[in-house]
Amino acid sequence: MGSWDDKMSGNGTLYVVGLGPGERRLMTPAALAALARTPVVVGYGKYLDQIDDLLVGKKVIRSGMGAEVERCRRALAAAAAGSDVGVVCSGDPGIFAMAGLLYELRDREAVFAGVEIEVVPGLSAVFAAAAALGSPLTNGCVILSLSDLLTPTAVIVKNLEAAALSELACALYNPAGKKRRELLQQALAIFVRQRGPEVPAALLKNVSRRDEERWLGPLADFPAERVDMNSLIIIGNATSVISRGNLYDRRGYREKYFPEN
Amino acid sequence: MGSWDDKMSGNGTLYVVGLGPGERRLMTPAALAALARTPVVVGYGKYLDQIDDLLVGKKVIRSGMGAEVERCRRALAAAAAGSDVGVVCSGDPGIFAMAGLLYELRDREAVFAGVEIEVVPGLSAVFAAAAALGSPLTNGCVILSLSDLLTPTAVIVKNLEAAALSELACALYNPAGKKRRELLQQALAIFVRQRGPEVPAALLKNVSRRDEERWLGPLADFPAERVDMNSLIIIGNATSVISRGNLYDRRGYREKYFPEN
Repeated sequence: MGSWDDKMSGNGTLYVVGLGPGERRLMTPAALAALARTPVVVGYGKYLDQIDDLLVGKKVIRSGMGAEVERCRRALAAAAAGSDVGVVCSGDPGIFAMAGLLYELRDREAVFAGVEIEVVPGLSAVFAAAAALGSPLTNGCVILSLSDLLTPTAVIVKNLEAAALSELACALYNPAGKKRRELLQQALAIFVRQRGPEVPAALLKNVSRRDEERWLGPLADFPAERVDMNSLIIIGNATSVISRGNLYDRRGYREKYFPEN
Repeated sequence: MGSWDDKMSGNGTLYVVGLGPGERRLMTPAALAALARTPVVVGYGKYLDQIDDLLVGKKVIRSGMGAEVERCRRALAAAAAGSDVGVVCSGDPGIFAMAGLLYELRDREAVFAGVEIEVVPGLSAVFAAAAALGSPLTNGCVILSLSDLLTPTAVIVKNLEAAALSELACALYNPAGKKRRELLQQALAIFVRQRGPEVPAALLKNVSRRDEERWLGPLADFPAERVDMNSLIIIGNATSVISRGNLYDRRGYREKYFPEN
């Protein structure tokens, strides 16, 4: 149905494709199928490098960090000109990535109005990190980014305060850059104040890669100086346990499961 | 390395495998590989049915809803007896699923101490739902379950209040059962009060299946009576937009992206 309409309109379909956390074994068949279908692929260079074997014979449009609007406009323009187009994103395209901006630009710029957008979800990095650690998000979670490039600092702090008030585990993306360290300190302080210094926490770097590094321990001892651009932080809650190199949340009432205790 | 140690210890490895939201095209190669490796597979009947073509020649241990502890003990026992075992979970095994409980039982029951546990992450249903809707989790999210089977109602309400205080989108799993409707009403009231009646919201049923149903609109009009066990709810925020059948969050400063306005 869609494809005939597309042909009539002269527009291609724009697939926003989640590549997952990096390993090919965590990339879905749906993502591979979308890339097989698109003669034009648009993305940030680092993510394109990750799938260079899938790009043979395609028109590849690379763009640099920070060039998100330009990247999305070029992808929408190629689709408006009649080509099916893939925009690749790390992890899931719907979290801290390009999908939202593509919808926004389609709504704002009449020339793109005929483009169909289809989001192909992917595994966001924090779920690979959580699996590598054990099961720290068992009872739900708050996922937020400490990058203040696109979000006012006051909103990030408000979200951190709200997250800390809950009893949910919290996953922090983009926790710090070379110069951007202050929000990380603030985040740690908020959680220490709200959940106590002994609440379990984890730092994961380069998840599922050879050079993976991890730290597990009480939040008060968190090694903030080791946090870099490739880091993810998970802060636990009252049900979290560190044991045998794993971090996990206990699930529900222990009274219910283990009435003998 | 691990496999030799495993053989020495006489224990098998227990893989906790995320099947994703249901469609095979959203199941990762890692999950397929883990299932190919395990002669024993344990799970809730409905999830096993979903992968019956992958279970040929295997010992399959089915268990019913609510039998989570028994299911996990049987899986750990099979691994302790020397077999590699797969425990299948819908979505991601680390969110509202079995991974946490398996770690907990291994720590509690000495007979399971030698079992290696490996979590194979999967795409949780909300990310397929979000992709189908557009991009409603662009700026991060709170993921929580309204099931009070394993979590005290007071904790769920506390988490809802905290989530509503943030500016993050909120995804509600297990929003209601046939008799369990009260927390859903409470959740909607909390968000209406905190974010206003006009905040965009979505109801998704049977995501990515033939009988998928969706509703999009202002939270005040939310059709609570249509919510069932197969429903997911997403509640937006001040940046959320409903347009052309999609729900998405605007990404960051519009001022930054579109200075012309």
